[in-house]
Amino acid sequence: MYTFSKRVSSLQPSAIREKMKNNKPGAISFAQGNPSSESFPFDELQTISESLFQNNPNDFLQYGLSEGYEPLRQALLNRTKQQGYGKDFDEVIIVSGAQQGIELSCKIFCNEGDSIICENPSFIGSLNSFRSYNVNLLGVDVESDGMNINQLEQQLKDNPNTKLIYTIPNFQNPTGVTMSLEKRKAIYNLAKQYNVLIVEDDPYGEVRFKGKPIPTIKSLDTEGIVIYIGSFSKVISAGLRVGYVLAPLDIVQKMVVTKQCADVHTNLFAQMIVERFMTTYNYDLHLYKLQNLYKLKSELMINCLNNQLIDYISFDEPEGGLFIWCELNDNLNLSDFIKQSSELGVSFIPGSVFSLSPHNQTQSFRLNYSTPSDQQIVEGILRMKKAIARLENNRGVKQ
Amino acid sequence: MYTFSKRVSSLQPSAIREKMKNNKPGAISFAQGNPSSESFPFDELQTISESLFQNNPNDFLQYGLSEGYEPLRQALLNRTKQQGYGKDFDEVIIVSGAQQGIELSCKIFCNEGDSIICENPSFIGSLNSFRSYNVNLLGVDVESDGMNINQLEQQLKDNPNTKLIYTIPNFQNPTGVTMSLEKRKAIYNLAKQYNVLIVEDDPYGEVRFKGKPIPTIKSLDTEGIVIYIGSFSKVISAGLRVGYVLAPLDIVQKMVVTKQCADVHTNLFAQMIVERFMTTYNYDLHLYKLQNLYKLKSELMINCLNNQLIDYISFDEPEGGLFIWCELNDNLNLSDFIKQSSELGVSFIPGSVFSLSPHNQTQSFRLNYSTPSDQQIVEGILRMKKAIARLENNRGVKQ
Repeated sequence: MYTFSKRVSSLQPSAIREKMKNNKPGAISFAQGNPSSESFPFDELQTISESLFQNNPNDFLQYGLSEGYEPLRQALLNRTKQQGYGKDFDEVIIVSGAQQGIELSCKIFCNEGDSIICENPSFIGSLNSFRSYNVNLLGVDVESDGMNINQLEQQLKDNPNTKLIYTIPNFQNPTGVTMSLEKRKAIYNLAKQYNVLIVEDDPYGEVRFKGKPIPTIKSLDTEGIVIYIGSFSKVISAGLRVGYVLAPLDIVQKMVVTKQCADVHTNLFAQMIVERFMTTYNYDLHLYKLQNLYKLKSELMINCLNNQLIDYISFDEPEGGLFIWCELNDNLNLSDFIKQSSELGVSFIPGSVFSLSPHNQTQSFRLNYSTPSDQQIVEGILRMKKAIARLENNRGVKQ
Repeated sequence: MYTFSKRVSSLQPSAIREKMKNNKPGAISFAQGNPSSESFPFDELQTISESLFQNNPNDFLQYGLSEGYEPLRQALLNRTKQQGYGKDFDEVIIVSGAQQGIELSCKIFCNEGDSIICENPSFIGSLNSFRSYNVNLLGVDVESDGMNINQLEQQLKDNPNTKLIYTIPNFQNPTGVTMSLEKRKAIYNLAKQYNVLIVEDDPYGEVRFKGKPIPTIKSLDTEGIVIYIGSFSKVISAGLRVGYVLAPLDIVQKMVVTKQCADVHTNLFAQMIVERFMTTYNYDLHLYKLQNLYKLKSELMINCLNNQLIDYISFDEPEGGLFIWCELNDNLNLSDFIKQSSELGVSFIPGSVFSLSPHNQTQSFRLNYSTPSDQQIVEGILRMKKAIARLENNRGVKQ
């Protein structure tokens, strides 16, 4: 009935977010990417909230600046500089969740018909955001140490209208892959050579519970060609919708005027809560506890998978993040597995959903261990095992 | 150094928001459009906040739905239906301030090169948002009872690529003008005839302190062609960034998927605060108090203007909203007046800033009475009088 613009006419609701609405009672979801509710620093946030209402109400009830709450911007500039990736030429803009940083990066750099190179598969929220600006998405395969560099260079050669390389270098969503330092350097050098910018989306960087941190691509940035996007959704609270972009001043200034058109500024109370939490409490100790929580949850799921499903699936053990990326054996049908699992009350997302060509069939699927409780992890994997048994029975019947 | 997209390359920071940063100590601003901090229902919000932390922390720290917090959506559907403008075919999406509703309306309906008809002058935030999608802006003069209908029809005739008519029918920003019911009907009928949609931006509708409310354009909507945008920024708190869009289901659904790409969902704590405030307290009594506050502030400014400046300016008395729209007498130079006033420590915004062609010179300027204290209103107008005296002295010297 309505004629929508070309840019949004084919946009579909996120399959994952739709699933959130339809969870039956007793159903277990490995589908979402929600942080564990056990990870929220609840007492601290309550104390901060009370103090803000007592001492600073006019500061957060009134309009604020589009670039963000100044003490939070300063705290982030200090922290990123201390950690060696905030450069002297960089500034910070606070955004309404990392998603807004991703959208702004696309909006300020890409004309319609321009291209963005993405890992394939990648985060649906980013892919849809790029699609909503009529941008052409070019995929590069994800290997166990990150983007296939030859494919990346070929895409850059073949597509001179490429403006951005979009990457999630740490514990990539959905594959869980972490890019090696060698590949980070290679991507940076290719971006320099082909005069494109890198959007480094790093929501999981601080959720590393094994192995050694690898320097951000931003830390290699001598030319001012990396836009680094950070988020508090996985480490403090997702509902607060606070993220940030660290980028050269000119880019941040253009983002500020573009953000004014989008939502004027990010909710001030949330910005102040994040700032007080970072500066009043021991932020690194909080991260350490959160990493341990996810370490235990991931190990629990890995143990369950090894005990119950190892004859039917393969997977790599993640060193951080929220996901385990699995591959169903070729002799089993993934759609049937998902259908049977759903009937038995456990849901998860097929890899095709994250593909740049969503109709491609794969044997991959993504499991999330941060959202379910420990008991749900155990029970959910048992249900998946029952689903496999049903598949095998059905096959027996058919044969 | 960076090549930005065509859509944002000419975007400039809001002159008003830039002024907010540079206020000297002791300076008085009539420039902003901030609600009065006296209007914030502080005690109630504090009580609600404490209760949310005690009873529902997991509800607002975790991810939520893109369409918004369900009880708030329901409260708004109920209220708009009770007031006669929420239709059976309508749905509500919660947005991160009305600004986001304005941006989403443009993004989902306008291709690059399409046109939007706007009142001229109009709210800069909206104009910039439309510009940021490479949309062509067509102006229609604002008369004392709203848009010039003949000009509107001519624009619709001349520009078949028009997708939206954007209007602020109540206490328009910047002119303070309220559109008559007759004109609301005429605009609705023209939109129907020319197959375009109306975006009815109504942030000030509940800030009426004189005269009788006029039905919204949405209340006339039998065909599902009106997108109504409401805001809590002027009636509860601007810093919370909560607004809503009331529109036919198909439009709201497309906004939901497009909002997912923009910021996933609006800050949940803020949504819950607004919902609790609307449903637990006497919301209409709160609005009544707020209207009285603005009535007194506007009358104070009008009295000061009548006592000090009536020989040099003319203006209409507003029946609501936050602004008085003034016209400087032709024998005085507006730029000089603004410059002298600024030197004397009082700032306000020339009408040219709100024009669709910002380089047009006018004698108009906008004064805000909600942000300054009563004492600042008295002192600020006295400073403006001193500025006039300086202008007259200078003229005397020159002659």
